[in-house]
Amino acid sequence: MKKTLPEKTIQRLLLYYRYLYFISKQGTKDIYSKSLADLLEIRASQVRKDLSYLGKMGIRGAGYDVLELRHKIAEILGIEKEIKVCIVGMGNLGSALAAYRGLEALKFKIDAIFDNSKRKIGRKIKGLYCHDIKNLRQVIQEKNIELVILTVPAEGAQDIARTLQNCGIKSILNFAPVKLSLPRKIKVKNIDLALELKTLSYSLTKS
Amino acid sequence: MKKTLPEKTIQRLLLYYRYLYFISKQGTKDIYSKSLADLLEIRASQVRKDLSYLGKMGIRGAGYDVLELRHKIAEILGIEKEIKVCIVGMGNLGSALAAYRGLEALKFKIDAIFDNSKRKIGRKIKGLYCHDIKNLRQVIQEKNIELVILTVPAEGAQDIARTLQNCGIKSILNFAPVKLSLPRKIKVKNIDLALELKTLSYSLTKS
Repeated sequence: MKKTLPEKTIQRLLLYYRYLYFISKQGTKDIYSKSLADLLEIRASQVRKDLSYLGKMGIRGAGYDVLELRHKIAEILGIEKEIKVCIVGMGNLGSALAAYRGLEALKFKIDAIFDNSKRKIGRKIKGLYCHDIKNLRQVIQEKNIELVILTVPAEGAQDIARTLQNCGIKSILNFAPVKLSLPRKIKVKNIDLALELKTLSYSLTKS
Repeated sequence: MKKTLPEKTIQRLLLYYRYLYFISKQGTKDIYSKSLADLLEIRASQVRKDLSYLGKMGIRGAGYDVLELRHKIAEILGIEKEIKVCIVGMGNLGSALAAYRGLEALKFKIDAIFDNSKRKIGRKIKGLYCHDIKNLRQVIQEKNIELVILTVPAEGAQDIARTLQNCGIKSILNFAPVKLSLPRKIKVKNIDLALELKTLSYSLTKS
């Protein structure tokens, strides 16, 4: 709990966690670092280094104890803590994420959704009441929302980001295809779908 | 055109391209490498290195010629070539992507969609005819589809990936939260939304 883990380490720990969750449900009790390494196509020494962040752990004859490992990863990453989320922008992508079950499984609670369209405000979308984006600040503060998923068009994203900054939001998952200008203390993860696809398709143009 | 560009370079060139497209529409004729650098919060020397991949370019008094730069990036990245895409899995995310206009703007043509649900097969979803996933191979080959967006649950993803391999597909954008086991020559880009969110929220548990 003392120091911040590197992002790559966090991501690998989450992948281990997901896998451990899966195999523990199937009844597997022990696992070697080699098996985790094979899963991610990395070296076992990398796995052991990652797991060393978890502190002292009992090694059984047949490897790590699956349940203990799961528990330790959950503890250090705060996986069990529920995080309140809102989604801003109820277009196709926003609506899809509002209905995405994978979020609840990871203890994210979608607690509010927003749009600026009169056709949507005040209606239920995927079972959630759609708020007017004008009330963004008020609703976020009332509900103690911590993380924002931004699924608005590029044009409006920066203005909303500033409002989120003023609300004290510290983490934004941004799907708008634009680089948000915000202080460094606010963590922004950009997912630019068109850019990912285009990067992927570049290899096709070479063949 | 001779050598393959590094992925990071491709992504930056795409970001430059998008910005150049935007400012050229607004009537801007010249741009300094410094302006592109500020946009991405990188050094101007990095921009100049990236642009050196484009070959010889006229430098005007006031910087690079916006239209020429745009044209050269489009040419080297094959941006103008239309790529045929299909989406496998018409759940919330698949449907959202089927309706995503940002794809067409980048010359992706969604030419087929697939699902295994009787409620969806044979119907139109976002204006596209939904094929039976059993006909994946046949439809892909008939339509010369080159790139596949995979939006199925984790359980079914690997089997579908094998079928795609047998169809000769070389690029997959995978949203299923599972690592696909495929030969290296097939390029897979994973977008694991829950993992990205969880990585982002880790910082919240620290505060």
